[in-house]
Parts: sequence; structure tokens; C-alpha cells
Amino acid sequence: MGRALAGAFLDAGLRTTVWNRTPGRDRELLDRGAAGAASVAEAVAASEVTVVCVVNYDAADAVLRQDEVATALKGRTVVNLTADTPARARDTADWAAAHGVRYLDGAIMTPTTTIGTDEAVFLHSGPADLYGELAAIREALGGTHTHLGEEVGRAAAYDIALLDIFWTATAGYAHALAVARAEGVTASELAPFAQGIGAILPPLFAETAADVDSGTYSGEGNPLTSAVSSMAHIVHVSEAHGIDAGLMRAAEGMARRAIGLGHGQDGFSRVTEVIGRR
Amino acid sequence: MGRALAGAFLDAGLRTTVWNRTPGRDRELLDRGAAGAASVAEAVAASEVTVVCVVNYDAADAVLRQDEVATALKGRTVVNLTADTPARARDTADWAAAHGVRYLDGAIMTPTTTIGTDEAVFLHSGPADLYGELAAIREALGGTHTHLGEEVGRAAAYDIALLDIFWTATAGYAHALAVARAEGVTASELAPFAQGIGAILPPLFAETAADVDSGTYSGEGNPLTSAVSSMAHIVHVSEAHGIDAGLMRAAEGMARRAIGLGHGQDGFSRVTEVIGRR
Repeated sequence: MGRALAGAFLDAGLRTTVWNRTPGRDRELLDRGAAGAASVAEAVAASEVTVVCVVNYDAADAVLRQDEVATALKGRTVVNLTADTPARARDTADWAAAHGVRYLDGAIMTPTTTIGTDEAVFLHSGPADLYGELAAIREALGGTHTHLGEEVGRAAAYDIALLDIFWTATAGYAHALAVARAEGVTASELAPFAQGIGAILPPLFAETAADVDSGTYSGEGNPLTSAVSSMAHIVHVSEAHGIDAGLMRAAEGMARRAIGLGHGQDGFSRVTEVIGRR
Repeated sequence: MGRALAGAFLDAGLRTTVWNRTPGRDRELLDRGAAGAASVAEAVAASEVTVVCVVNYDAADAVLRQDEVATALKGRTVVNLTADTPARARDTADWAAAHGVRYLDGAIMTPTTTIGTDEAVFLHSGPADLYGELAAIREALGGTHTHLGEEVGRAAAYDIALLDIFWTATAGYAHALAVARAEGVTASELAPFAQGIGAILPPLFAETAADVDSGTYSGEGNPLTSAVSSMAHIVHVSEAHGIDAGLMRAAEGMARRAIGLGHGQDGFSRVTEVIGRR
């Protein structure tokens, strides 16, 4: 991802200095006109703005939290596009503030291939004035950029919630394909119908959000009691084929907990409130 | 759902006799021109084709598997649109065959409000010639009808797999909303981005299906090792807020099982094959 970001900066004609933990991985970028740096401190000293994107905040900390790097960054800006938890983003913002470093946090919601194209989706959080100054960088990265607020953990909070949706749905699809195959249905046979299910999710997401924010949790036409009946069938068929149904058992457990608390006639959205109770 | 189906038959001008386990629930249908039946046997004797839609096959069996009902059905057709497992569909088809009843199984993939409209989606399986004879009934029900094959369990198999996708994604979304709320993000703030995630699922479903059928399991750009890193973040943030993360723990477990078997560089689709191994 770091290479995709630096490549987009070069394509946009921005002066770009690159550093990678693995020597040699910057070869193609150097060929395209990037300046190389022998150390992190040298890299961050070369520009007013440093964009960081590594595997997680342990890796980001290992890069940034060195004395000579902090010294070189003083008065400069770090845009951290590394994915991790909101708490880690806040902690890094605190570190930056303590070292006189201007700090913006962000998350990249789309694959490396989208960077520099209209398809890219970026989320940002942190000081609005700092966000405002970085228009040239956003323009170079392409796609859609949203400033989610000054609270620096917000980009990571959205990222976590959106990845929660993505990975759960992906796991559910993989499971469904395994069950279908055990029943003699190929993935390609199921796919067009699966796409139909996928297509109804976005409008349902919007409806459910309104339901949750208003505390309505409407079960009209699809109460939790009916949902668990479907879920039990899925678990049964899955396990009859020796396929682990832990994922659906967890989903069913969420629904049954809400039913046990007296919400059987509500919709599945009630789970949002029940599972978040302290 | 039974009332919606019977209503569509009446709207289409088909002669319709109704029976419901709860007396009085047919009132509106009788007002609209349906004939009432005092018993199941009387109802099935009134027409060449009986459409059954109840909560599950326990309920369907309780309705159909009575001596006088079997006698009245002999030589006639049952279209069972009740949702349950493929094994139960096959068992009911066997019962029908043993009693000289022509039998078609089916599943309704959309809510009651879609019945009679273009939005309705029906799946069917069983004898193709019987399916061919029932065009007037399908036309009355509206929407899209697909005959998935002669193997009578196929409609239920697709139904189970598609509900697996739907309920897992729904549970993931409810969980994500709870995590977002704990981080101070409202459902309506998250929803537009969640819809963006929803929109990328259908094309990914098609890609993944091709990957699974070809046994490629490509992890290019998103290997399992990177997926579990995201998943661990989600579990961590969720549990730090006291929100049960059993669903994501199950998804992560599926991925880790595939990694443990040496498939860390494959994509999540590898899970489909691993989880289905005997």
C-alpha cells in the first residue's frame, strides 16, 4: 500500500522521498523519480508532510518513536494511514502532541489497486485546519476523502466497524459456499442468487440504521423469533455435513440473547442495543 | 406469507380455497372471494393444486400427513413453499411419492410484501414436467421463478445457503453498529459507508465463486495472514467495550484454521474448501 501511495504522489508531480523497512522495495519508485532515504529520520526531514502506512501501529511506532525521528518531525506533519484500533490512533496522537508533531489519522477502505483512481475511499480524523491544508495530497491520492471530525480516533472507529461488516459477510459467504457444495450446488450456481442477497443489503443497512438510532427495532414481517428458526436450520444442515457452524451459532446466540431479554417480536436490529449493554 | 400467496391467486383471478390453522385468519381472503374450507382434507379436495406455506416442515407434516388428507391428495399436486432443510424436503417428497401425490418443493426468498410484484423471488425444485404445468400459478405469484433442477432438495439447499449469507451479514452489521456506537459513532453516521461496503459485496461474490470452483483461492492483495490481523483488531476493540465478539472470533477461527493448514498466502475463499473437508 505504501508503494501505491508514493506512486500516486509521483504521478501527481509531488516531490516524494521514500523509505521502506525492506531495502530494495523502493527500486521501482526511485526509477519513477522518487528520492530515496537511508533512514527514517532522513526521509521525514525531506518533506513538510510524512505519510505513514505500515501493517499496524506496532510497526508505525517502531518507525516513528525514535529520538532522531521525533526530532526531525518537530513542527512537521504526520498523516498516519495505518489501520489499527481507535485507542492506538489516540495514543499516537498523544505522542505526536508531546513531541510537537502535527498529526492526522486516517484509514484506507479500498485495495491498493484503487489508489489514485476514483474508486479509492479514504477516511480522516484529527484537526480540521490541518486536514484543510492537505488538499494537494488528497487530490494526488484520488477517490473520495471524508473528514469524520476532530476526535482523532474516529477514522479508526469507522474502519473497524466497516471491516467488521466486510469480514463477517465474507466469512458468511465462504461458509454458505461450503454448505452449498456439500449439497451438490457449485459456487457459480449459487453466485447469481448470492449477488441478489448482496444487492438487498445496502437499503436494509440504511433502514436498520434509522431503526437503531430511533430505538424502534421494528420486527414487522421479520421478528427475531422467526430469524432464529432460519438460523437453526442453517446450523442443522451445516453440521449434518460436518461443516463447522460456529459463525451461525454465534449469530443465533446474539438473537437468542435478545429474545431471552423479552425482545422476540423485535427485529434483528434489537441485537445492536442488547449486545452493547453494560 | 400464506395470506399473501392466496391474495395473489385471488388478484390473478384463480379459483382459490383457503385453510389456516388459526380459524378466522382467512376472514379478509373470504371477503376478497376465496372459498373457505372447514378442514385440510376439504381444502386440498377443492383444487388440483395445493400450495403449502407454514413455519417449517414439522408444521407442514402436521397438516399433510393425515390419512384423510393423503387420500384427498392422491393424484393431485402439492407445491410446498415452506422453508426448512433439504433433507426435510426430500423426506416430504418421499412421503408424497408413497401416497401417489405429485410434489414440487420451493422457497420464497423475499418478504410477504413482495408477493405478486416484480420484486418477489421464488426457487423451485422437483419434476420438470410438473414445474412446466404450473405456469399460471407462477404468473399469479409474480416476480422471478427459477427451476433449480429435478433433485427436490435443491430449492431448500439454495435457500439455506442464501439465508446463511443474509443472516451472517445482518448479524455482522448489528455488531458493527454496536461497536460504532461504543466509539461515539451513530448508526446513521456509519450507514452511508456501510452501504459502500455492501455495494462491493456482489462483485466480490462473483469473483470468489470463480476462485472456489477453479480451486484457485487467490490471496493476491488480501492474503489470510492480513485478514486475521484486521479481525484481531475488531475483536480487540469490541471486547474492550464489553461487546461480545463471538461472531468475529468464529470468523477469525475459520481463517486461522486455513492458515494453520498452510494456506496463509491464499485468500479468504480458501476457508470454503478447508471448512468443508471431511
